[in-house]
Amino acid sequence: MADGIRTITIVLFDGFELLDVFGPAELFGSERERLRVQYIAETHEPVHAIQGVAIVPDFSYADAPTPDIVLVPGGMGTRKLVADAAFLAWLKAWGADAALVTSVCTGSGVLAAAGLLEGYRATSNKRSFAWASSNGIGVEWVPAARWVEDRDRWTSSGVAAGMDMAAALLDHLFGPGTGQAAADSAELELHTDPAWDPFAAQNGLA
Amino acid sequence: MADGIRTITIVLFDGFELLDVFGPAELFGSERERLRVQYIAETHEPVHAIQGVAIVPDFSYADAPTPDIVLVPGGMGTRKLVADAAFLAWLKAWGADAALVTSVCTGSGVLAAAGLLEGYRATSNKRSFAWASSNGIGVEWVPAARWVEDRDRWTSSGVAAGMDMAAALLDHLFGPGTGQAAADSAELELHTDPAWDPFAAQNGLA
Repeated sequence: MADGIRTITIVLFDGFELLDVFGPAELFGSERERLRVQYIAETHEPVHAIQGVAIVPDFSYADAPTPDIVLVPGGMGTRKLVADAAFLAWLKAWGADAALVTSVCTGSGVLAAAGLLEGYRATSNKRSFAWASSNGIGVEWVPAARWVEDRDRWTSSGVAAGMDMAAALLDHLFGPGTGQAAADSAELELHTDPAWDPFAAQNGLA
Repeated sequence: MADGIRTITIVLFDGFELLDVFGPAELFGSERERLRVQYIAETHEPVHAIQGVAIVPDFSYADAPTPDIVLVPGGMGTRKLVADAAFLAWLKAWGADAALVTSVCTGSGVLAAAGLLEGYRATSNKRSFAWASSNGIGVEWVPAARWVEDRDRWTSSGVAAGMDMAAALLDHLFGPGTGQAAADSAELELHTDPAWDPFAAQNGLA
């Protein structure tokens, strides 16, 4: 932050969910003069979303920048990540230094498996809630929430919920109204109440 | 379509808007056993969104596949495209063979400039409506609409509106309820009425 710019580093892996990443990145992009979005993956080779498209990361784990804000998306690729001890050890050590660690969808299962949610409240995708909440220890899982803010850990519900959390995060970083301005620019109708969650009931969680 | 699978080819260019592409691609992805999403750009080199991330295209203009459904996104990169006579001639010739030509946001300005909207009704991003509608001739521009379906041309309003149009397109391709199922899976609250458009009034267009 030597230049006064905040950074969000998004952790990519094969099988990540497209909108978990690019929904928040769209909104963050409206503040790109004071918020840099960058992408990290295991190597510099392109990483494939579960929907098939290939993204070129900016950093590899080996040349990971000092983290400011971290975002871990979900997607079916998370199932492999939570069994990858070397990845989890790297994520725990690297993420521990971040000002804020966030996740979208089943990304919270990865954070939990890495031990980064111990002692925190957190939520996750409502269809994969049983799986996500089976990871880690000492996490107070919240079944009905669009997103949960607990000190330096913010976790959202599934996929599109990441955009609502991203707008709230913009307010947190840059002041009230910043998230709404980003949403208006994207013609997006926001949900600004973190307790709004019809998908919990739809999936038998409330 | 020899294998019975429909394809959507998304036209990428430097300066495209992230969510114009990956919002629809997220929803299309829930039907990936019968709907293939692929990406085309001028060359096989990575293409950069206006928000900075690099995407690797599947095809170049030179090896463009036979189009089934085409989607042209918006973004500041469109300003350069509408002045690129070689690109417009390629898009017009290639898109003319498509079963359906669609756009998100200012992508409709590109379609209009290429002559692909002549004799059609269309909409566009509400903040950039004056610019988008200054392109092409013979287009009946609709200022207040989330999206407009006119025979084989579907155009959406800005950015997030592309997801609502994508859900409607899934219904059109695969039957009622398909779009809602994709949205439920993504925990996305859909707007299913193409006339819903608070952003028209917000931007002085209604």
